[in-house]
Amino acid sequence: MRQVCIVGKGQLPIGEHWDKSIQHLAFEAIAAALADAQIERPDAMFLGNMSSGVLSGQENLAASVADFCGFRGIEAVKIESACASGGASLRMGYMAVAGGIHDLVVVAGVEKMTDSLGPDTTAALSMAADAVYETFQGVSFTALNALLMQRYMWAYDVPDDGLAGFSLNAHRNGAQNPVAMFQQEITADDYAKARVISSPLNVLDSSPICDGAAALVLAPLDQVKSLGGASRLDPVRILGSAVTSDTLALHDRQDPLHLTAVEEGSRQALDQAGLLLSDLDFCEVHDAFSILSALSLEAIGYAPRGTGWRYAMEGYIDRQGEFPISTQGGLKSRGHPVGATGIYQAIEAANQIQGLAGANQVPGAQIGMVQNIGGSGASVVTHLLSA
Amino acid sequence: MRQVCIVGKGQLPIGEHWDKSIQHLAFEAIAAALADAQIERPDAMFLGNMSSGVLSGQENLAASVADFCGFRGIEAVKIESACASGGASLRMGYMAVAGGIHDLVVVAGVEKMTDSLGPDTTAALSMAADAVYETFQGVSFTALNALLMQRYMWAYDVPDDGLAGFSLNAHRNGAQNPVAMFQQEITADDYAKARVISSPLNVLDSSPICDGAAALVLAPLDQVKSLGGASRLDPVRILGSAVTSDTLALHDRQDPLHLTAVEEGSRQALDQAGLLLSDLDFCEVHDAFSILSALSLEAIGYAPRGTGWRYAMEGYIDRQGEFPISTQGGLKSRGHPVGATGIYQAIEAANQIQGLAGANQVPGAQIGMVQNIGGSGASVVTHLLSA
Repeated sequence: MRQVCIVGKGQLPIGEHWDKSIQHLAFEAIAAALADAQIERPDAMFLGNMSSGVLSGQENLAASVADFCGFRGIEAVKIESACASGGASLRMGYMAVAGGIHDLVVVAGVEKMTDSLGPDTTAALSMAADAVYETFQGVSFTALNALLMQRYMWAYDVPDDGLAGFSLNAHRNGAQNPVAMFQQEITADDYAKARVISSPLNVLDSSPICDGAAALVLAPLDQVKSLGGASRLDPVRILGSAVTSDTLALHDRQDPLHLTAVEEGSRQALDQAGLLLSDLDFCEVHDAFSILSALSLEAIGYAPRGTGWRYAMEGYIDRQGEFPISTQGGLKSRGHPVGATGIYQAIEAANQIQGLAGANQVPGAQIGMVQNIGGSGASVVTHLLSA
Repeated sequence: MRQVCIVGKGQLPIGEHWDKSIQHLAFEAIAAALADAQIERPDAMFLGNMSSGVLSGQENLAASVADFCGFRGIEAVKIESACASGGASLRMGYMAVAGGIHDLVVVAGVEKMTDSLGPDTTAALSMAADAVYETFQGVSFTALNALLMQRYMWAYDVPDDGLAGFSLNAHRNGAQNPVAMFQQEITADDYAKARVISSPLNVLDSSPICDGAAALVLAPLDQVKSLGGASRLDPVRILGSAVTSDTLALHDRQDPLHLTAVEEGSRQALDQAGLLLSDLDFCEVHDAFSILSALSLEAIGYAPRGTGWRYAMEGYIDRQGEFPISTQGGLKSRGHPVGATGIYQAIEAANQIQGLAGANQVPGAQIGMVQNIGGSGASVVTHLLSA
């Protein structure tokens, strides 16, 4: 297999984009990534998106976006793995380049969530959970995460504000990220007073509903030097790539507090790269809710079971800490336009490795892991990036 | 790249499956394909499906189906290219095996269309067209194909029943196919008297709304002999694989009667295989509407522009003809459970090549092409299969 590199990156500011269609959002991110790589037309495009059918009445989105971008004729396929759709599109692009099917591939993600033709966005997002055994019983996706959080706090005697460390860290980093939705820090007092959405989960435990799009250009290592973009001088290599799965329904899991697909995906990606967890300089976890950050730290193998929240409280996850996470705000502060999130994560990791993370630079970052989750751990996409 | 083979096949009878969930339908097809290949657990699964979110309230379908099948943990990703979703999932599986990412891959397709939680199925299918410039203006997907048919008949002076040959051929073959939805022949008189849905398109020009699921097991050629299934003795090789695209909206095309993505996809797949069109023993075209069969014959390059309907009338497309199509009933008679269709087509082609097509066997079939279309030519997936 060929070694796959990231040679172009493009991302839109995350927020409410009332003035642009979903195709237009995707186009702007893709155009930026192509300009960065100095490429006019890719050989193929894989597009991550969860809810274009339900929210915008548009299926077959990849062909539509390819046409909007002026790529009429190319291979264009939409990939859907709920909130991991962006990561899964990166995975498909990785397969295409690694396997020698295509040379220059755009992998993109887009989601337009603030506008809906059909059910409201909360109902659309709930489709990531088990429809028959969870959603139809009346539980929302937020409520499912609240149940996980409740059980975690009960099982490990976590104090009321025990998970605050994740949100504080995310907002501290997001405050410096020019494309983040919430560019402001929050305090422990803000967290303590935050409105409860679904007890014990409050609004500052939750990532926002938002619009966004992001794109990468991938190329095989042996062709990187022939490209014109700045990345030809310091391409970011993808050393590991894995997709793993678990049950959608939480009650079907032997232990709902253990994300088996996160554990297995991390192991597979590290093994492919021939690396150990201790080799990572940082890790972009899928912090859609603060409980997911805690469970991720534990399932990845960084923190012992029941202690992830302590690592956050004690600064280990800070930019200067031992295991920095959400280094540019994470899903919580940068935002979580679901099908685009996995691509935003990869861009942030690439920027860290290239020393382009500005005020959020992790000193000496050379190797990072990105993990994008669909459902509460049902679809997990893990990539290992390196200089 | 490794040579990719089909080593297992499974398909459900197409019809109205009120007693089974979408996961259950997919499971039964996948279990049959695995039994055929004598494999217990694949390394990965790619699942084609268009409308599970809109119709069944379930996104993240691939992880859900993987769990239902007992494959907890494996890579499982849903692929959406409207009615070409099944073909696109075969494409992703092909990439994974050809590129050496995985060895044993299930590619499946499923659609449950006769039941809907949300909009009716006609509205769901219309999401394959351009939402803003077509669907929101009130045109249905059937009406768009009626416009194509109208223009074709006007441009080429086609008589009222000029396109009947496609439906007659499809039903003649479907009558012999035990999984077909409509296992009966129709007569020219039936066609002439058929109820008009959207003038000039009548009910016998149209494929049905239905439920179905189909699955294949793929493996690299060098591992085929070590498997236990019967196909190890005569695996079907995939010699060509291409995805091509065009505008969703018909009015954006320079010539709406020319399916450029069909032309380009056929050319790419033939070139990869080092074959000429004249080498094909048969071709499974995407006959969702009879007009699409005519336009496909012409864009593939078999029939000169404006003459495809004559080739059908004069028997060239029959099983004994020069260029057999819809050899087991096609979308018209076998049925068109949209996300599954591309897999049904590939199974039928593999059966022809292995001499397993029963009463529908094309004499001496060794090489066949399958083409799965999403939208009215917006997403086209072409595969070339050979003994």
